[in-house]
Amino acid sequence: MLIKDVSLLQSGALLKGRDILIEGSRISKIGRDLKDENKEETIDGHGKLAIPGLVNSHTHLAMTLFRGYADDMALMPWLTEKIWPLEAKLTPEDIRSGVKLGCLEMIRFGITCYNDMYYFMDETAAATKEMGLRAFLSGVLFDARPELMSEAEAFLKDWSGDDLIHPAVGPHAIYTCSEETLLSARDLAEKYDAMLHIHLSETNDEVEESIKKHGMSPVEYLDSLRFLSNRLVAAHCVWLSEKDITLLARRRVNVAHCPVSNLKLAAGIAPVVSMLKAGVNVCLGADGASSNNNLSPFEEMKTMAIVQKTACRRPDVMPAKEVWKVATENAYKAFGLDMGLREGALADLSLIDLKKPWFTPETNILSHLIYSIAGGVDTTIVNGRALMRGGVIPGEEEILEKAQAQFERLTS
Amino acid sequence: MLIKDVSLLQSGALLKGRDILIEGSRISKIGRDLKDENKEETIDGHGKLAIPGLVNSHTHLAMTLFRGYADDMALMPWLTEKIWPLEAKLTPEDIRSGVKLGCLEMIRFGITCYNDMYYFMDETAAATKEMGLRAFLSGVLFDARPELMSEAEAFLKDWSGDDLIHPAVGPHAIYTCSEETLLSARDLAEKYDAMLHIHLSETNDEVEESIKKHGMSPVEYLDSLRFLSNRLVAAHCVWLSEKDITLLARRRVNVAHCPVSNLKLAAGIAPVVSMLKAGVNVCLGADGASSNNNLSPFEEMKTMAIVQKTACRRPDVMPAKEVWKVATENAYKAFGLDMGLREGALADLSLIDLKKPWFTPETNILSHLIYSIAGGVDTTIVNGRALMRGGVIPGEEEILEKAQAQFERLTS
Repeated sequence: MLIKDVSLLQSGALLKGRDILIEGSRISKIGRDLKDENKEETIDGHGKLAIPGLVNSHTHLAMTLFRGYADDMALMPWLTEKIWPLEAKLTPEDIRSGVKLGCLEMIRFGITCYNDMYYFMDETAAATKEMGLRAFLSGVLFDARPELMSEAEAFLKDWSGDDLIHPAVGPHAIYTCSEETLLSARDLAEKYDAMLHIHLSETNDEVEESIKKHGMSPVEYLDSLRFLSNRLVAAHCVWLSEKDITLLARRRVNVAHCPVSNLKLAAGIAPVVSMLKAGVNVCLGADGASSNNNLSPFEEMKTMAIVQKTACRRPDVMPAKEVWKVATENAYKAFGLDMGLREGALADLSLIDLKKPWFTPETNILSHLIYSIAGGVDTTIVNGRALMRGGVIPGEEEILEKAQAQFERLTS
Repeated sequence: MLIKDVSLLQSGALLKGRDILIEGSRISKIGRDLKDENKEETIDGHGKLAIPGLVNSHTHLAMTLFRGYADDMALMPWLTEKIWPLEAKLTPEDIRSGVKLGCLEMIRFGITCYNDMYYFMDETAAATKEMGLRAFLSGVLFDARPELMSEAEAFLKDWSGDDLIHPAVGPHAIYTCSEETLLSARDLAEKYDAMLHIHLSETNDEVEESIKKHGMSPVEYLDSLRFLSNRLVAAHCVWLSEKDITLLARRRVNVAHCPVSNLKLAAGIAPVVSMLKAGVNVCLGADGASSNNNLSPFEEMKTMAIVQKTACRRPDVMPAKEVWKVATENAYKAFGLDMGLREGALADLSLIDLKKPWFTPETNILSHLIYSIAGGVDTTIVNGRALMRGGVIPGEEEILEKAQAQFERLTS
């Protein structure tokens, strides 16, 4: 595949008229006047900006099917009256439908990889592969359903070595998993050299309960179990002490910051600036669409930036360049992804239409990507395959209709 | 003009298959199987949602030309090193170009009316009228340039009675305008029965200075000058005492809340929930694109909602229905606009494509408009005239190119 005459960002500057040659699943060359010897597929990049793939570092993708079903509620009634009753009725077909709907949306936002924790991981993996995205998938684990642990191991075995699907291990949280469950999850991840995925210090209540029960914060408690390492993605991390932040940095934990979900659920404002200063590898996640209610990485970037400025009372913290690093390089590091717009990297990228009011004037494109963009992702490529071209995703209408039908069945 | 087979929201429910007949500048009928006797123009509304026009209640539209020129800076260096030197070089042609760029963007977001404060109001009015939007326009007033007052009066006379342009009076703020300037501005607005537009209590510094200088908060000070009334739109109102809130409610002042700008400039979080509870008429503004950096009303709605939830530590405050009222009815009330999707109202509306992942499933469309929408405004109609159809705005490319050229000239 050859992308002709596209614009690129290099150290913040906009370079125009470049070509990107993709061979197989990798970017083989970036330069001027390149030729595709195989002449398989040429994409006109004129007036478009190529950016490397974005990563949704924490989500529950099948829950996209619940979008807008329950909002503006306190956490417990939201869970007990709305979400749990619906989850109890979920079928594999619902999961496939919700996952495909979520994939559609992520393709439209230039997301090429996501990190999921939910039920029915085989269906999630199959639907994701069909849609063509890259994913780290963890079947959720908690004490109340001990059979999930053996399912998780089967999933790790079955999907090991897949080119797009990375099976992972997802103990839900310290308040739903016993020490035994947490240790089994950790051992399982080590045994299969897989990522770990957990919710951590999302609410103040979680921290207070942990201190009451363990005499330690959730972060300290997990550290006491030797659970913290660079194979861990810890979602949220809103309520952290200075000691917690030091521990997360020292253990090289990856934090999936979910600013929109945290604000919408009134969880609070995570100390992102302090974490970054301490060297914590912070990346960004949308959380589930049922608590956001979309999967836009651009909203997460802008919300993180502007909320941190106010939280720190300094408009100069979290400049665009740092936000972009969080959204890209930090995520690639967290998941060990060989990604970026460079020769040899995985061909995960998107093209964005620059001929839009929100990219005009072409002053500082990095700033526009963080603060101004309001649409215009035109083409999304994952693993060398174009999943959307010219704003068109084959089969989109059927997926939308199917999701509507599944939702109506589920809530009837 | 006849819009056929469109969806509408009525008391939160989605009604499908409705027709909207527009005659002249008004909606003349909403119903089923309507016919346009004049057969002038028919728009296919199938799969689309009609919403009433949105209002950008506080902006500096020509500054759209400065988008991304200076970000992530503290207020004073931002103004003195970046914005003021550029403003000193502005020509009427720059203004026309910046205003048209801003109008393009607002048309793409379904905004049909905006409230502006800036320089060169004749050019702003002419460019806005050419683009077809409705606007309340105030030439900014401050002590350092006393000649602006007579220009403001000439503008009020010249544009009085226009069907789209409402001239207004815009003293900048209490810290740039003497008592004399404020009183003259108030008298001018009363003489011409025009709206007043001011920046108020945006930063904590402004409040502290006012208390030091006047022994009163900015709101109390303006009240002591009999400046507060329902002809006033006060932008920001971030730092308010309980007494201030009571005064704003009692004097029926309209507050233009600008959540994204307030966060990005680290001004703070306005007490919106308290204001609404006290009966203050709060509406939404984007502020200038140079401190946002776009003009999306959907971003303002979502940001207001989720930030207020966290500020109040309650996910159930600012539900979607209340957010929508702030964005629509409150704005119509502030500006005395006879707007809404009903027979007899001004034909200011937009059509939004529902066949998008972020509107699926069709659970609660009002929730999707606040929390999930990420594009898809397809058609925007102002005063009975379609400014965008099928996502196409005639002349858009030339306006984008012209804005780029003007920006390059300005910064060369």
